[in-house]
Amino acid sequence: MNVARFFLVLATILVAAKLLGELAERIGQPAVLGELVAGVVLGGSALGVVPAGGTEAELIHVLAELGVVLLLFEIGLETDLREMFRVGPAALAVAVVGVVLPFAFGYLFWRYAPHAQSGSDDLVTAAIFIGATLTATSVGITARVLSDLGRMNTAEARIIIGAAVIDDVLGLVILSVVTGVAAGAALSFLGILRTLVVAVGFLVVAVVVGRFVAPRLFDVIDRMRVRYVLLVASIAFAIGLAALAGLAGSALIIGAFAAGLVLSGTNQFDTIEHEVRPVASIFTPIFFVSVGASVDLALLNPATPAARATLLIAGALILLAIVGKIAAGWAAPWARFRRIVVGVGMVPRGEVGLIFADIGRRSGVLGDEVFGAVLLMVMVTTFIAPPALKALFAREPPGAGT
Amino acid sequence: MNVARFFLVLATILVAAKLLGELAERIGQPAVLGELVAGVVLGGSALGVVPAGGTEAELIHVLAELGVVLLLFEIGLETDLREMFRVGPAALAVAVVGVVLPFAFGYLFWRYAPHAQSGSDDLVTAAIFIGATLTATSVGITARVLSDLGRMNTAEARIIIGAAVIDDVLGLVILSVVTGVAAGAALSFLGILRTLVVAVGFLVVAVVVGRFVAPRLFDVIDRMRVRYVLLVASIAFAIGLAALAGLAGSALIIGAFAAGLVLSGTNQFDTIEHEVRPVASIFTPIFFVSVGASVDLALLNPATPAARATLLIAGALILLAIVGKIAAGWAAPWARFRRIVVGVGMVPRGEVGLIFADIGRRSGVLGDEVFGAVLLMVMVTTFIAPPALKALFAREPPGAGT
Repeated sequence: MNVARFFLVLATILVAAKLLGELAERIGQPAVLGELVAGVVLGGSALGVVPAGGTEAELIHVLAELGVVLLLFEIGLETDLREMFRVGPAALAVAVVGVVLPFAFGYLFWRYAPHAQSGSDDLVTAAIFIGATLTATSVGITARVLSDLGRMNTAEARIIIGAAVIDDVLGLVILSVVTGVAAGAALSFLGILRTLVVAVGFLVVAVVVGRFVAPRLFDVIDRMRVRYVLLVASIAFAIGLAALAGLAGSALIIGAFAAGLVLSGTNQFDTIEHEVRPVASIFTPIFFVSVGASVDLALLNPATPAARATLLIAGALILLAIVGKIAAGWAAPWARFRRIVVGVGMVPRGEVGLIFADIGRRSGVLGDEVFGAVLLMVMVTTFIAPPALKALFAREPPGAGT
Repeated sequence: MNVARFFLVLATILVAAKLLGELAERIGQPAVLGELVAGVVLGGSALGVVPAGGTEAELIHVLAELGVVLLLFEIGLETDLREMFRVGPAALAVAVVGVVLPFAFGYLFWRYAPHAQSGSDDLVTAAIFIGATLTATSVGITARVLSDLGRMNTAEARIIIGAAVIDDVLGLVILSVVTGVAAGAALSFLGILRTLVVAVGFLVVAVVVGRFVAPRLFDVIDRMRVRYVLLVASIAFAIGLAALAGLAGSALIIGAFAAGLVLSGTNQFDTIEHEVRPVASIFTPIFFVSVGASVDLALLNPATPAARATLLIAGALILLAIVGKIAAGWAAPWARFRRIVVGVGMVPRGEVGLIFADIGRRSGVLGDEVFGAVLLMVMVTTFIAPPALKALFAREPPGAGT
């Protein structure tokens, strides 16, 4: 691999992300929207700057993963655990409804809609798959938007983040189920239970043990003399816990979020947060640009019949995806928060939907036009949530946030 | 590639680097020495944590390159260009003598020493190669030591850094010559001249143009609103210029150093330096750990005859390498500085020597025991310079620095 050429790609990604992020802010939108557009522009269907295959693509992928891991770490650092527990039941209700409803919508739509040509041999498998792609919320997109808007400290933000993290756990369960279905395996209740237990167990053990150990450990580290030892130790802790979560069969971002929660209880919390931010600011744009880069612009051209079929299915999926998640905002009638804000905050599917769609295509369960439709759904839900959230917060009645 | 496993490797590298860096400081040595030892411990001949091949190794390589690029960028930022010009002639003299002497020593040693068994078919080619491995100074190691010791602002540091950067330019010329020789090509004066002109030309054009353009450009960037735009723009500028230097046929680090020099003339210099440091502190340990990881501990076991032959050749090369570079400290009789400090500062060969040795082995010019000897020479010169510099600075007469 040519290191110089790769560095040029990296520099281009960073510059484009900041330029279009700035443009987005100037027209009153969150910066992350600009970074996604930068990805579309630099992606394979436009300029082709972001590498699509080979070692360079793997490298970008790892740097993007570092970006989302550091983002979730930062979010964990900023999360007040007691506040989180207070909104816990509401977040759980929002998450569960926000997974069950869209899944049911997607499954029933594909199972009973009239099919001109089937996307796969087995309609039920495809329907399960399409339902699955509608479930998981992209915590990265929403958290970044809330952070860009300076609204991380609202009750709505806490419920959205909490529900999105729970969604990731549920998403992992669905992912394991769906991967099994795609491989032709029978649904195993034990397998489902195991995935769920691992993800929840990891979070609980990490936070409980970490809250005891971390303050003592970081008091020791703080007495060390080498430069930036606190920062390097914190980041090693975050990517280490992310790795352990991954190796335990859960998601990297769950470990990173847990690491942030744990370190928010240390005495060195302020220094850590202050120093982690600039490091995260280098990596997170790479993540959002690479999400944008996976969008295929050819799917938007209505001149071809294939694109028209795709657009039709996509329209239906988008509607179901939005309605299913917004309805989830009303899932916790006992709690006080602005339900429409939470509902809209759960809409973006982002990277998780893309992962599901990719598995479906590679295993042959999803045909080309259905795959395109799922991609469009992911794209549109991801792109509409930031301006919608921004508009909703702008119209927020004074003092209604908490 | 398994991202989780790679993250675990990365976390281990960072933790080991800081732990052994701390240990080094506690026993009165610069932290970088501990990071090199951490690399040896994690490397293929000991624990084998640092990946030696495949995509993961390439990834570590790119992250390490990012580390050395950010290190040179930071050094460029801290370099006072007027001071640099003032020491320019002295640095040039030190650099040239420090390349010519060791090259001549190495060439003559291998050409006329008695050979029990030749390491290659062509003695002259091998001799040129061994001379070449003795030439280039590792600016990374020395700069890091000077920075760890808080001595970047001394006349000696400026001469060492200046001479080491010139060495890198000369090293590139030698590298292109040596690569040609290894491939069986005839020496081309035009080819040599071209490499030299590209490297020097790149530095001059980048700095002259950059000094005009950069202050205006960064005044504009400073008025942008997106978070950390100055930091991200600076780092994109550094890796972009490094990439351009690489694509122009020069070294990445020359571009990164030029980028630092250019940005040291902007009004946002303080903010940039303040924010770049934490980011660099994550990547530079990866570079030093990966340099340490390429050391093969089996070469140090005197029980085997092959290792004894290697150790004998290595002893001679180490002596020549040290004498040749220390003598270079006396190359500028008109300038006032502590010659022994500059001479010792030029001793470490680090990554550049490793690159030469690697090319020699892969092209079959260097036999196994000679290759091992060159590795040992690189290792020893790299490991002895930090404590020697530290001891010299401790004995510095008051006010002799500037």
